[in-house]
Amino acid sequence: MAEISSLGEFGLIDRLTENLEISNSSTAVAVGDDAAVLHYPADTDILVTTDLLLENVHFDLTYVPLKHLGYKAAVVNFSDVYAMNGQPRQITVSLGISKRFTVEHIEELYAGIRIACEQYGVDIIGGDTTASHQGLVISITCIGEAPKGKAVRRNGAHDTDLICVSGDLGAAYMGLQLLEREKVASAGQKDFVPDFAGKEYLVERQLKPEARRDIIDELAKAGVVPTAMMDISDGLSSELIHICKDSKVGCRVYEDRIPIDYQTAVMAEELNMNLVTAALNGGEDYELLFTVPLTDHEKVENMKGVKVIGYICKEELGSALVTRDGGEIALKAQGFNPLKEEEE
Amino acid sequence: MAEISSLGEFGLIDRLTENLEISNSSTAVAVGDDAAVLHYPADTDILVTTDLLLENVHFDLTYVPLKHLGYKAAVVNFSDVYAMNGQPRQITVSLGISKRFTVEHIEELYAGIRIACEQYGVDIIGGDTTASHQGLVISITCIGEAPKGKAVRRNGAHDTDLICVSGDLGAAYMGLQLLEREKVASAGQKDFVPDFAGKEYLVERQLKPEARRDIIDELAKAGVVPTAMMDISDGLSSELIHICKDSKVGCRVYEDRIPIDYQTAVMAEELNMNLVTAALNGGEDYELLFTVPLTDHEKVENMKGVKVIGYICKEELGSALVTRDGGEIALKAQGFNPLKEEEE
Repeated sequence: MAEISSLGEFGLIDRLTENLEISNSSTAVAVGDDAAVLHYPADTDILVTTDLLLENVHFDLTYVPLKHLGYKAAVVNFSDVYAMNGQPRQITVSLGISKRFTVEHIEELYAGIRIACEQYGVDIIGGDTTASHQGLVISITCIGEAPKGKAVRRNGAHDTDLICVSGDLGAAYMGLQLLEREKVASAGQKDFVPDFAGKEYLVERQLKPEARRDIIDELAKAGVVPTAMMDISDGLSSELIHICKDSKVGCRVYEDRIPIDYQTAVMAEELNMNLVTAALNGGEDYELLFTVPLTDHEKVENMKGVKVIGYICKEELGSALVTRDGGEIALKAQGFNPLKEEEE
Repeated sequence: MAEISSLGEFGLIDRLTENLEISNSSTAVAVGDDAAVLHYPADTDILVTTDLLLENVHFDLTYVPLKHLGYKAAVVNFSDVYAMNGQPRQITVSLGISKRFTVEHIEELYAGIRIACEQYGVDIIGGDTTASHQGLVISITCIGEAPKGKAVRRNGAHDTDLICVSGDLGAAYMGLQLLEREKVASAGQKDFVPDFAGKEYLVERQLKPEARRDIIDELAKAGVVPTAMMDISDGLSSELIHICKDSKVGCRVYEDRIPIDYQTAVMAEELNMNLVTAALNGGEDYELLFTVPLTDHEKVENMKGVKVIGYICKEELGSALVTRDGGEIALKAQGFNPLKEEEE
């Protein structure tokens, strides 16, 4: 195990960025100067998004492996670019590293970031690496592109549009509950083996989420341009409210159409939690939520991994969940919000 | 004083980014979606740089006012873009905020960032705001531009090129020493008034540095394109070694030509520190270090705020400081390096 202080900042950066390959023509100069240099064609919407992840706020290293953490930290940024109907191309990676980490630890973390970048065709173009007196700090900025005018925002949903969602919801949240439960159970026990049997999907959704590049590709192939789109990071409810607010519309979402995996349902049962609440407010799904014109109904109905869950209505009708018995419950944004956490 | 939890993440962001003005045509969509959207012309070098600042590693809030901190956090990123011969255009601002901060505190910090952006014509286009269980975390990414092929890197210096530096060196470091001294002196004293008389310049260089946009403008006006350029953040010595390594050259820098302000000299005397060491290794000067062909000698000699301090030589001659008595001392990178700090 090598102490980071034996390398210093520049030595560590050299080691982490060794043999970095460039896969995008838009990357002209990557790591190693005051700034990276990019060349994008003029007919491009250049997309920029950023995420800050802090230890014990966004992740708990007692059960999150560093390689998974690196992978996830990169993927959540890619997800934001896909959510604009774009393709991620470059990231910068800034790390704040406390003394308890060795060079090998940081290499693990960085390996996860590099694997995610290879998987999604993204170049690492720079960053900043520094000591932290606190916990681990990860700040990633992602740059991507969409054909000019094709970036999809949150504000374009119209009355009668269909509301679609990819994949299934609530699993990442249930994975977190499971990991937290096993953490409590393991306290003080040296040889504790956590029990994830039959719940592997939940754990994977929490620890190693994927961004839905495939859906963006399918939409393009089908010639569907969503009127509004977001990725679901804070929970379906919270994101729907964002789209409705920005688009000045309302919505109806059907409880019985919300896609939920059976492992999520079993886990909710086991923990005596409300399943729909978990699916609506759980967060960290990184699925795509989008609206399309009613005329695209057939196209999205036939799209693999996409489900129509409701429709957009006039603003004055508000945003509501239509329950199985036909009742209506107003949607509330109760998603993950570390700035509102009780315990700190 | 308002608790941040009373607003939550989205409420806080809304408040901080209220009435943000956009001053660049390249900014198409700023704050408020999954990603910002930029439009740059095709004949552009797009520049990307990022900095991570952590409390008690990069700043000490016992003597750094939050507004100054915000200003400096933005300006150090602009400096990196100027150091590429570019113009900063956009930034993303990510903040990790611990519980002891109120809404008003964060507004102060953000006000400093906004003032810097107004001053330098830069748009705030996004970011991330979250709770921190640690100290204050500031992560800024800056995007800028230079005409295509005009971005100046570190690797273009040639044998016989002149080495130039803007402004003066060592003052920010001496300002830090002064602030640290007054912090120690003030310990436990309620009504302590720090004594900065006659040393205002040092304090200002440390707390409110400026980026040298004026030098970039002057170079353009004079038709001088540097062969290599960096900003001096880690100290002259460290940056010279970077340029020499990347350009595969050596250098000679004259001790008696290094620009030093008289307040810096007085402070070094007072603290019984070696003045040249402070100027070579102090760091945080945010001055520009650049090399130009010998044929540009007259142009740079006549440039206000620029001094020729030495020349580039063949790699095998190494990098050295030529002392007042004609001796030579090999340059060493002893600049600020938090990953090598002893105390943590």
